Amino acid sequence: MKVEQPLDIAGSEFELRLKEVLHSKVEFIQLIEEDLIAAGGKRIRPRLALLASAALGGVPGEMELALAVELLHSATLLHDDLVDDAEVRRGREAAFRKYGNAVSVLSGDYLLSRVLYLLSQTGRVELVELFAEAAKRLAEGEVLQFQAVAYQEYSEAQYYQIIEGKTAALMTAATEGAALLGNVSSKLRGALREYGHHYGLAFQLRDDYLDLMGEESRLGKPVGGDIREGKITLITLWLLQQYPEVTREILLRRASAPGDLSRLRRLAEEGGAAARMIKTIKERVEQAVASLAPLADSEAKTALEELALAELQRLQ
Amino acid sequence: MKVEQPLDIAGSEFELRLKEVLHSKVEFIQLIEEDLIAAGGKRIRPRLALLASAALGGVPGEMELALAVELLHSATLLHDDLVDDAEVRRGREAAFRKYGNAVSVLSGDYLLSRVLYLLSQTGRVELVELFAEAAKRLAEGEVLQFQAVAYQEYSEAQYYQIIEGKTAALMTAATEGAALLGNVSSKLRGALREYGHHYGLAFQLRDDYLDLMGEESRLGKPVGGDIREGKITLITLWLLQQYPEVTREILLRRASAPGDLSRLRRLAEEGGAAARMIKTIKERVEQAVASLAPLADSEAKTALEELALAELQRLQ
Repeated sequence: MKVEQPLDIAGSEFELRLKEVLHSKVEFIQLIEEDLIAAGGKRIRPRLALLASAALGGVPGEMELALAVELLHSATLLHDDLVDDAEVRRGREAAFRKYGNAVSVLSGDYLLSRVLYLLSQTGRVELVELFAEAAKRLAEGEVLQFQAVAYQEYSEAQYYQIIEGKTAALMTAATEGAALLGNVSSKLRGALREYGHHYGLAFQLRDDYLDLMGEESRLGKPVGGDIREGKITLITLWLLQQYPEVTREILLRRASAPGDLSRLRRLAEEGGAAARMIKTIKERVEQAVASLAPLADSEAKTALEELALAELQRLQ
Repeated sequence: MKVEQPLDIAGSEFELRLKEVLHSKVEFIQLIEEDLIAAGGKRIRPRLALLASAALGGVPGEMELALAVELLHSATLLHDDLVDDAEVRRGREAAFRKYGNAVSVLSGDYLLSRVLYLLSQTGRVELVELFAEAAKRLAEGEVLQFQAVAYQEYSEAQYYQIIEGKTAALMTAATEGAALLGNVSSKLRGALREYGHHYGLAFQLRDDYLDLMGEESRLGKPVGGDIREGKITLITLWLLQQYPEVTREILLRRASAPGDLSRLRRLAEEGGAAARMIKTIKERVEQAVASLAPLADSEAKTALEELALAELQRLQ
């Protein structure tokens, strides 16, 4: 399946330019950046930018846009490793465990300076403003998630605010950014903005769903990570409403007792929360696909549709 | 003395705009930003930007520039609190002790998103490029400082590379940024660039000098902080050359034995390293003042000269 490839459009050029733009004469930075390149990742965000560009017939500055969204995402990962105390990040030892928090944060800042550079190279100050808004919502989403854990205050509205910020905002910047660079009509720009927004939400909803309901062998990481970090996602929120006592108990001890996770999984299956999640994700995917209607048919448009539909396939 | 005022040009407008631009609807971010506003600081970087603008007769976007340099600096402080494990930062408890590393790093990222926004509001993509370069050198300087500690590798060239990155680069962006916004001749732009560079180096040289040789009562913080953090500055580098054995011994135990610091101070006085530092700072200050020659006389030009000269007064 196409979408599982590292990057099907201009793949090698992207990786080459990435290496180039990450280069630093400071050895410690270079080590962390090489780690990032080697770790790879799915390059979902640059793919979104390049596909959106291709769906518009190609826009000037598409490569800078693709690199900028990937680097902003990578910087977040470097800054997030401290936050999440993540045990596995993209299947490799988290950078901060090797080099310490200090270099991790500062190398993230180095990446952000490269984002600034890439944006400047498009010559489009409006793109800088678009990224400013995305970066603001990203930081706010991440802090809000932390605040929710600290206050133990949760609601569906807040959950959506968090995932919109930490995931959908940057994906929206990837697709809407291509429209901006292409100077297309506000209708087409709106279409790509909506696609990025719905796709981003579908992506995070699916990620959060699998974090509880997935199979470790397919995920490549242990399930229940969110619960162990005290994060409430949509499905645990629903379980809290349906089975307040048992769910609260398990969440309070962060699923540390044997059988806690399988108990929650069983409740989600029996009570319908799991099915409701799948329905919710399906609706988002459909909204993402429907958003693309104003765009003329093209291979790239089909690839964007497939990218969204793949979120559903991952649930099976 | 003028330069000890919070900000003598457009001071209240700056503080008002700062408050406005820092506003976030996320409570945890708001708490950290309020802390930053309350802590104040000397606002040296925005002062440089506003004085450089005034020396050119006022340039469009000067306030955005002034806010952007201050916020980039503040973001560095938030990211640095983790790095330095600083006990006192701007005379208040470091933000991270109150709210944890997570919120500190992410609130720094929030500030950086506001920098992006401010830059975009000038409508000048060249300013974005100027900041990209400054931010890159800033991150590289900070990581290099960390790397030097880790490898215990020190040289005068590397010391200058570190302080150029972590301090002078952003001060240069403040003054050169004003020239860029004013579309002035390359001669005037070069003058303001040079001023920022030399002033920045003088500023950090003076800071590093006082960290060993200053009086705690005047500094408002304990002396010897750099040595305790394993950082080698120019004066300790000279002491290492002059008195290798005793200095290395003290540095290795990070001045933890009683009398270590006063011993180094005495050696610096007796062997001439202290006097040589003062001479070095004086030369930088003179270079900063001389750089301003191409600018027409004005109150602002005089204020920039006084700002540089004040670095010498602080040594007495």
